[in-house]
Amino acid sequence: MQGLFLEELSVGQSAELTRVVGAADIDAFAAVTGDNNPVHLDAAFAATTSFGERIAHGMLSAGYISAVIGTTLPGSGAIYLSQTLRFKRPVKIGDAVTARATITDIDTAKARVTLATVCLVNAKPVVEGEAVIMVPRKDA
Amino acid sequence: MQGLFLEELSVGQSAELTRVVGAADIDAFAAVTGDNNPVHLDAAFAATTSFGERIAHGMLSAGYISAVIGTTLPGSGAIYLSQTLRFKRPVKIGDAVTARATITDIDTAKARVTLATVCLVNAKPVVEGEAVIMVPRKDA
Repeated sequence: MQGLFLEELSVGQSAELTRVVGAADIDAFAAVTGDNNPVHLDAAFAATTSFGERIAHGMLSAGYISAVIGTTLPGSGAIYLSQTLRFKRPVKIGDAVTARATITDIDTAKARVTLATVCLVNAKPVVEGEAVIMVPRKDA
Repeated sequence: MQGLFLEELSVGQSAELTRVVGAADIDAFAAVTGDNNPVHLDAAFAATTSFGERIAHGMLSAGYISAVIGTTLPGSGAIYLSQTLRFKRPVKIGDAVTARATITDIDTAKARVTLATVCLVNAKPVVEGEAVIMVPRKDA
């Protein structure tokens, strides 16, 4: 189940996953986090806001970034040190969100890897940011 | 359902919520995000890692921060612009996580509010960072 080791990573490597956000996903995210903000849950309230309809929690998209890192690049074994998130556009029900992580820097001495992270809907960024992780060495 | 307006906020205002993380919460977070990293889900695998046992997704704690902002300070109506997250310690099953947000700056001209955000377990920070939000004006 071990993911990739530090020695198997290089700058420019990229991985992504795509999830279509359903109303049930937003409901489930609200239940597990306690974030019951009505802009996410209540269509009538959301219709009165600038968004015009229910939107997904920004942290749901952030969870997709975590999924790419934790399951694919580099996968399990890495330790999440930090993540920045800039929320650029809303995600609505039915949107296909592609979360992508691309390695931008590898600090071999510290075993730290930096990734540019973005979530896209219709090729436009909805969340942008940067992740820093610690990755195990093969010979450790 | 409208939350607090910009005019109702001041530097130093703080709000928090506490959630006890159950195994079912971690399972639900994995299901909704697709983050099936075995360190979160598989006790036998997790026992082989430096954590020694299953740990919660860092983004679950981030979701609690979103919950404080989206439901309490300032509550609905605010727009999430950005969040930084530094993951300091693991969160384990049974841990009571207190997510707290404290206003550190208000840019009245831009209607932007900055909050220091932290998640604590046994009074020790597990996640630290900063949120920036846009808050509606009462007279808008």
